[in-house]
Amino acid sequence: MANEKKAVSAVTSMSEDFAQWYTDIVKKAELIEYSSVKGCMVIRPYGYAIWENMQRLLDGRFKALGVENVYMPMFIPESLLNKEKDHVEGFAPEVAWVTHGGNDKLEERLCVRPTSETLFCEHYANIIHSYRDLPKLYNQWVSVVRWEKTTRPFLRSREFLWQEGHTIHETAEEAEAFTEKMLETYAEFCETELAMPVVKGKKTDSDKFAGAVSTYAIEALMHDGKALQAGTSHYFGDGFAKAFGITYTDKNNSVKIPYQTSWGVTTRLIGAIIMTHGDDNGLVLPPAVAPVQVVIVPVAQHKEGVLEKAHELYDTLNAAGIRVKLDDSENSPGWKYAEYEMRGVPVRIEIGPRDIEENHCVAVLRHNRKKEFIALDNLVDGVKTCLAEVHDGMFESALKRQEERTYACTSLDEINETLAKNGDGFVKAMWCGDEACEDKVKELTGVGSRCIPFEQETLSDKCVCCGKPAKCMVMWGKAY
Amino acid sequence: MANEKKAVSAVTSMSEDFAQWYTDIVKKAELIEYSSVKGCMVIRPYGYAIWENMQRLLDGRFKALGVENVYMPMFIPESLLNKEKDHVEGFAPEVAWVTHGGNDKLEERLCVRPTSETLFCEHYANIIHSYRDLPKLYNQWVSVVRWEKTTRPFLRSREFLWQEGHTIHETAEEAEAFTEKMLETYAEFCETELAMPVVKGKKTDSDKFAGAVSTYAIEALMHDGKALQAGTSHYFGDGFAKAFGITYTDKNNSVKIPYQTSWGVTTRLIGAIIMTHGDDNGLVLPPAVAPVQVVIVPVAQHKEGVLEKAHELYDTLNAAGIRVKLDDSENSPGWKYAEYEMRGVPVRIEIGPRDIEENHCVAVLRHNRKKEFIALDNLVDGVKTCLAEVHDGMFESALKRQEERTYACTSLDEINETLAKNGDGFVKAMWCGDEACEDKVKELTGVGSRCIPFEQETLSDKCVCCGKPAKCMVMWGKAY
Repeated sequence: MANEKKAVSAVTSMSEDFAQWYTDIVKKAELIEYSSVKGCMVIRPYGYAIWENMQRLLDGRFKALGVENVYMPMFIPESLLNKEKDHVEGFAPEVAWVTHGGNDKLEERLCVRPTSETLFCEHYANIIHSYRDLPKLYNQWVSVVRWEKTTRPFLRSREFLWQEGHTIHETAEEAEAFTEKMLETYAEFCETELAMPVVKGKKTDSDKFAGAVSTYAIEALMHDGKALQAGTSHYFGDGFAKAFGITYTDKNNSVKIPYQTSWGVTTRLIGAIIMTHGDDNGLVLPPAVAPVQVVIVPVAQHKEGVLEKAHELYDTLNAAGIRVKLDDSENSPGWKYAEYEMRGVPVRIEIGPRDIEENHCVAVLRHNRKKEFIALDNLVDGVKTCLAEVHDGMFESALKRQEERTYACTSLDEINETLAKNGDGFVKAMWCGDEACEDKVKELTGVGSRCIPFEQETLSDKCVCCGKPAKCMVMWGKAY
Repeated sequence: MANEKKAVSAVTSMSEDFAQWYTDIVKKAELIEYSSVKGCMVIRPYGYAIWENMQRLLDGRFKALGVENVYMPMFIPESLLNKEKDHVEGFAPEVAWVTHGGNDKLEERLCVRPTSETLFCEHYANIIHSYRDLPKLYNQWVSVVRWEKTTRPFLRSREFLWQEGHTIHETAEEAEAFTEKMLETYAEFCETELAMPVVKGKKTDSDKFAGAVSTYAIEALMHDGKALQAGTSHYFGDGFAKAFGITYTDKNNSVKIPYQTSWGVTTRLIGAIIMTHGDDNGLVLPPAVAPVQVVIVPVAQHKEGVLEKAHELYDTLNAAGIRVKLDDSENSPGWKYAEYEMRGVPVRIEIGPRDIEENHCVAVLRHNRKKEFIALDNLVDGVKTCLAEVHDGMFESALKRQEERTYACTSLDEINETLAKNGDGFVKAMWCGDEACEDKVKELTGVGSRCIPFEQETLSDKCVCCGKPAKCMVMWGKAY
């Protein structure tokens, strides 16, 4: 057809070159475009709409827990960043520094926030006086900057979008419980909305957030067997409060120090979706966050009644609150099929003259390409069932892959042999708790500690590395 | 009461010191807190919730017009900012410059976006090729930075939150129509949601946005008689497109240059709400954007049945989608009345033993303190009627004030006398179109040109300044 856009060009196959496959998808599904600042990307409408859906779903969960949104300045004076020793050591090497305002040199350099603990602490010191002011459960949706050397869209960029929650509590117990509650919230969100199974656990000391007492994380396994940290929740104890002079008067009128947490997820989750669910035809989006949940493609649309019927289906689904798109452009059905597969639309509805005669339409599920007939009298329920089927199918196959690629090992040799034979994946192995062993496992096998899973198993009583008594089971893996 | 917080301290009276009244309100209603970076503020939960409500309502309007949200990087390389001559001259003197990433000096300075025309243009040059790619109707919700010398919360700050829409079209006519449509959208939003009457008009050339062909604005009159520019919409012609090399191939296969617009509103609108509606008891919030639309205050809450009934009212209103808060704290009703008046909650519901007996509650409207009984059997409708009454009453009194303080003048002496007698306000006067006269009016009367209103009148056929033939009527005023 003269007017038809050129056919969707195929993406590199996943098995051929996983990194190139990933880059092809982010570009060809029009999620991002590069900008002239290295490591900073333009998030295009289709990519941003995924993020907006995530925001809406997460923000609802946060608010249900009593969290309130705020906005902190994007600049942190150097002296403020310096207040907590571990924190500044962790972040100072990778911040962007503002030195001039207009033509004037600033008296003090300002960094563009890499994270906002210091600002929240300064604010809490101003507004918290009594136990009546506690807890404060604050969150903000902003962008942050970390001057990374190597960058990849969504996975590691110099600027990225995230939410950062910062809470402050009367007691350590309450703060610790909140830290774990937020990790649970993230895990539940990933599984329920993103169809992405995750392993919940605690980070080893070497992997803690700069300034935290303990860091918890959810780890997901990508298609190539590498792990991706999908969200973190930190318990700070009273370290930041002490450094920033935050105190409160308790019910008995004595001055106390409060306890803090912070927790965040980022646009990295979009990368996680791509690498968990995508295939050689493109993106596969979980229905809960797909900008378009259903695309209607009319077949033989020049024939009488086809477009009318397609519009009717559109109106019905739209009225039912389903995010639906009707493509009645001049492009061929084949072109449209490829285009919306590339974009990962969960359900495609085909409707042509014969379908109309038989009072049904054809639904094609993106994740397994299964075809189903839906009676037009039952359209909304039929489509909802398809969307649920897509979600469940995506979750199950991701979980199955994760289980198949999680290996229990009791020696370094076994780790090396297993990975050589089966490819990358999660490795479960016992650990004595010694950082030297953690480093040595990584050096000799290539897999680092991802987390100490909440669900512990006893694979042996000895450390996989040194053979001394084991303290816990660690989940190891190569990481994004 | 031993447990009662100290009484809400009164704000400075508006007539005594308007600037101090404003500052008292932003602080005491807990909208903002200062941070350690001059000119950058912390937007607290109550202030941020107002912004979230505005975002939701505006974003819905944008999306209904086909606008899509995106995210552009926050950094602009110096060379990119320099591409459009007028634009860089307008903004370069007031941008914050990033010169270092971590410990390394950058090869090229990056400015923190003061506005993102240059980034959108660079992106459009990458993605627009054919007439099929047009129009693009993009918007983003972000913060921007302008290194102002004098700052005031919401009104003028070094960092502020806004949305910036950037559209690109095949023809000048289409772009111009879209520019005006967005101004209409803003005006309609201000009047319908913020109860704030605005004057729509075109800026004079001296007041145009840096790089625009024409700038349109909505202007609102504050309580002190000063004008506040509440939103702007710019038509760019093809100037940016030429500077950034954006072209497209039209239906006849010839290469054409597209036409652009941009438009924005900011957190300044919160300042506009404060100064349009506030009074000596504090904030007065329009129901559409009030974080809490209705506060329930139990009276004699220790008496049997009162708290139960108060919770019942809460549940009923909450289920009806009204943003309602029940304050059952130990503070006295009087303290609560003052507190929620300070916070500008549109409707207060009082419920005590006698009310329960008589099967009604008392509603007190914030803007005029009028008391009404609402039958409990008619609670939801009664409260909705009150909220509508508050909105309408707020709009009418703001409009009345604006009309009373808009003065038609035909000579500079008359302007001076009128303002001396009546205080600041809008001045309508004829203008010849000469920039020298515009400057002279400001110099000799203190009022500058706010806009050339769409609704023109002929007050005389002569310029108020030079006496030569007048081209149009200008709305003059002192401005925030």
